[in-house]
Amino acid sequence: MKEQILSVVKTDQIDVATIKSLFAKMNTVDIAELFEDLSKEKIIQLWRILPKAIASDVFAYMDADEQQIIIGAITDTEVGEIVNSLFVDDVVDFIEEIPAAMVARVLQNVQPDKRKLINQLLQYRDDSAGSIMTTEYVGLREDATVREAFDEIRITGVNKETIYTCYVIRRDRLLVGVVSAKTLLLAQPQDKVCDIMDTNFVFAYTTDDQEAIAALFRKYSLLAMPVVDKEKQLVGIITVDDIVQIIEEENTEDLEKMNALHPSDEPYLRTSIIQLAKNRFFWLLVLMLSATITGGVISNFENSIALLPILVTFIPMLMDTGGNAGAQSSTLIIRGMALGEIRFRDIFKIIWREIRIGTLCGLGLGIINFIRIYLMNGRDLLLSFTVTTSLFFTILISKCVGCILPLFAKKVKIDPAVMAAPLVTTIVDGTSLIVYFSIAKAVFKL
Amino acid sequence: MKEQILSVVKTDQIDVATIKSLFAKMNTVDIAELFEDLSKEKIIQLWRILPKAIASDVFAYMDADEQQIIIGAITDTEVGEIVNSLFVDDVVDFIEEIPAAMVARVLQNVQPDKRKLINQLLQYRDDSAGSIMTTEYVGLREDATVREAFDEIRITGVNKETIYTCYVIRRDRLLVGVVSAKTLLLAQPQDKVCDIMDTNFVFAYTTDDQEAIAALFRKYSLLAMPVVDKEKQLVGIITVDDIVQIIEEENTEDLEKMNALHPSDEPYLRTSIIQLAKNRFFWLLVLMLSATITGGVISNFENSIALLPILVTFIPMLMDTGGNAGAQSSTLIIRGMALGEIRFRDIFKIIWREIRIGTLCGLGLGIINFIRIYLMNGRDLLLSFTVTTSLFFTILISKCVGCILPLFAKKVKIDPAVMAAPLVTTIVDGTSLIVYFSIAKAVFKL
Repeated sequence: MKEQILSVVKTDQIDVATIKSLFAKMNTVDIAELFEDLSKEKIIQLWRILPKAIASDVFAYMDADEQQIIIGAITDTEVGEIVNSLFVDDVVDFIEEIPAAMVARVLQNVQPDKRKLINQLLQYRDDSAGSIMTTEYVGLREDATVREAFDEIRITGVNKETIYTCYVIRRDRLLVGVVSAKTLLLAQPQDKVCDIMDTNFVFAYTTDDQEAIAALFRKYSLLAMPVVDKEKQLVGIITVDDIVQIIEEENTEDLEKMNALHPSDEPYLRTSIIQLAKNRFFWLLVLMLSATITGGVISNFENSIALLPILVTFIPMLMDTGGNAGAQSSTLIIRGMALGEIRFRDIFKIIWREIRIGTLCGLGLGIINFIRIYLMNGRDLLLSFTVTTSLFFTILISKCVGCILPLFAKKVKIDPAVMAAPLVTTIVDGTSLIVYFSIAKAVFKL
Repeated sequence: MKEQILSVVKTDQIDVATIKSLFAKMNTVDIAELFEDLSKEKIIQLWRILPKAIASDVFAYMDADEQQIIIGAITDTEVGEIVNSLFVDDVVDFIEEIPAAMVARVLQNVQPDKRKLINQLLQYRDDSAGSIMTTEYVGLREDATVREAFDEIRITGVNKETIYTCYVIRRDRLLVGVVSAKTLLLAQPQDKVCDIMDTNFVFAYTTDDQEAIAALFRKYSLLAMPVVDKEKQLVGIITVDDIVQIIEEENTEDLEKMNALHPSDEPYLRTSIIQLAKNRFFWLLVLMLSATITGGVISNFENSIALLPILVTFIPMLMDTGGNAGAQSSTLIIRGMALGEIRFRDIFKIIWREIRIGTLCGLGLGIINFIRIYLMNGRDLLLSFTVTTSLFFTILISKCVGCILPLFAKKVKIDPAVMAAPLVTTIVDGTSLIVYFSIAKAVFKL
C-alpha cells in the first residue's frame, strides 16, 4: 500500500481520487510515515488531500521536520484547528522541537484555556511526569452513579486520551479513587462510583522521573497512571503508549552512554554527520587521554621490556580479557539498577558474589591459558606462571571494579551508565598492567 | 506497608487478623512481592491466610520458586482451582519454569478444554506470538448490535484479559474486524457491530517474532493485538502489559550479548554463582583466545620493539581508542536495527556516513594527539607522525568494522548483538597494531 501510494504521489500530476481511496484503507500512523521521504512541495500537496477528520491525528504521528513544513504552509486558522484537536501532551512534544517564532504562532492560535495548560506542561522538567502527562482524562464525582458515569464518558469521552480508567475527584480536585471502564461495565447502573472505585491506586507526582514511572507501569501492568501535584490534586494522566516509547528511549540512552556515546534521541539515519561526530568526539577524547596513562604505566617498565620483549605480546590478551570481564559485571549491575532489582545496600553481597565469580572464571581461564602458553612458548614454566597469575588477578580486579564503580556512581547521583565499560576498561587496563609487570619483575628478577 | 506486614509475618506466632486487614489495602502485585524473601514455611503460612478471591491473581505475579513451593504444599483440588482461574498465558509462563513431574500434576487438575489450550500454546516456538498470546478475548459476531455486544461483555468480560478491544469473527472463525470499547460506548445501542468495526487492524501470525510484535505495538500505540493462524482464523490476543515486559527482556538480552554475556532472564541477585560464572565463561574464553592473535601480531614485530621500545607505550591508547570508536558505531547500528530504523539495504549509505564521521573524529583526535606526543616526548616529529597516522587509520577502520559487522550478521541471520563490541574490538585490535607497526617500520626504517 505504501509503495503504491508513493508511486502515485511521486508523479508530477497527483491523482487525488486514487490517493483518497488509498488513505481510506490506511492506518493514520502509516499515513504519517508516508510524509517522511517527500519533498517540501509534495508534503504540502499530500497534506491538502488529507481528509479533515484524520488530519490532526496524522499530524501527531509525524516527525518534527514535516510538522514544521506543514505549519509553515497553512493559515493561522488551520494551525488553530489542528492544535486545538491534538492532545495536550502531543502539542507539548511538538512545541519542544520547533523554533521559537513558530511556537509563538502556534500558541496565538490555540484556545486560551488550552494555551494555559500547554504553558503549564512546558514548565515541567524534561523527563518528569509533568512533562509526559496529558490533561485529557475522564473525571467523575464520588457520588455519581454508574449510569451517570457512562453519560459523562459518552459526552466527553471522544476527546479523552483514554476512557478505560476514570478518575474520581472531590470538589477540591483531590484524587480519591480510580475506576476502570471494565468495573463500570460489570456494575449495575444504579451503583455509586464511590462504592466500586479502587482507592489503593498507583499514582505519580508531577516531579517524578519518567524512568521510575515506567518501572511502575511494568510492575503493576498499568494502562494509565494519574499524576498529582504536591497537594494530591489530580493534574493529568500518563498512558501506556507513551510509556512504551519512553522505555525504548531510556534503553537507547543507557546503551549509548555505556558505549561512550553522548545520548541523542534522533534516529541514526536522520542525524547529521557533524552531530554524530560531535556525539562521539568527547568521550573518545577523554578515553584516549586516559589511555595514555596506561601507556605511562608501560613506560615505567621499559627496562623489563627491553630485557624480555616477549612480555609485550601478552599485553593485548590481558587488557582485552580485563576489559571484557569488567564490562560483564558492570552491564549486569547497571541493568539490574535500571530495572530496580539491585540497590546500593546490596553492595557487600554483590562484591562477595563477584569475588567468587571472578575466582571461578579466573581459575578456568587461567588453567587453559597456562597450558596454551606452556605448549606454544617453548615450555617456559616461569613465563606461563607469570602471565597466568596476572590474568587471574586481572579478572578478579575487573569484576570488582566493574560492580563497585556503577554502584558508587548511583550513590553520588552520577548516571551509572556513564561509568560503564569505557571507564571501567581504562582503570582495569592500568591496574592489570601494573600487576603484570610487577609479577614479571619479581619472577624474572628484571 | 510492606515493612509492616513483613515484621508481622516474621514473628513466630502470626497475627492473622492484622495481616488480613493489611492485605485488604494492598495491590496484588505488592502482595506477591511479599512472598519473595520468606522461608518455605512462612510462604505456605501466608498463602493460607490469603483471601480466596485474590489468591490466583497473587499467584500469577509470583516468581517461579515461590509458585513451586505453593503447588507442592496444596491439594490437587486447590491446584485445579488456582490454575483454572489463571489466564492461559500465565499458566504457560508458569509451566515452562517448573519440573516435569509438577507439570503433570498441574495439567491433571485443570479443566480439559483449558488443558488442550495450554498444550497448544506450549508447542509454539519460544519468543513467537503463539507463545506469548492468551486465548481469553471477547469475540463478537458481525451481525450483533452494540447492545448485544455489551451483553456479551457483561457476561463473559470478567474472565477476559481485556475487554477494551473486542474481536469480530465470522462463523468460520475468520477475524474480520476489531472494535474498541470506546467505539461501542460512543455508538447507539441499535448500531450493528459490522458497521462500526475497524477493518484495517494490525495483527500477527502465531509464528511472528515477539520483538517484531513489540515494534508494532510501539508504532501503532496498541493496547492489544489479535493473533491469527495461517488461515487467518483468530487464535488469541497479546496485551500491552506483556509487551512492556518483553521490551525490557529483549533490551536486557541485547545488552548482555553486546557485553560478552550469555543472556539470562533471571535477576542478578537470584542467579547462582555457578550459573553467573557459566554465563560469562564462554565468551571470556573465546575473546581471550582471539586476543592471543593480537599478541601474535606483536610478536612479528619484536625486532622493531627491541630497537624502539617506546613504541610499546602507545599500544594501549591505540587499542582502547579503536575499541571505543568501533563500539560507538556498532552500538548505534545494532540499536537502529532493533528499533527498525536501519535496514541492510542502507549499508552503503551507512559506510559512507561512518567514513566521514571517522575522518572527522580521526582528524580531531589526531591533532590533539600529535601535539601531546610532540610536547611530551622530546619534540620527536617522526614518532608523533607515526602514532597520529596510526590513530587516524585505527579510528577509520574501527568505524567501518563497527558498522559492517552487525549489518552482515543480520543479513546471514546471526544476532547482530553478538557481533558487537567484543568481536569488533578483537578485529580492530589486530588491524590497528598491524597498521601501527607497519608505519613505524617504514618511518623509522626498522
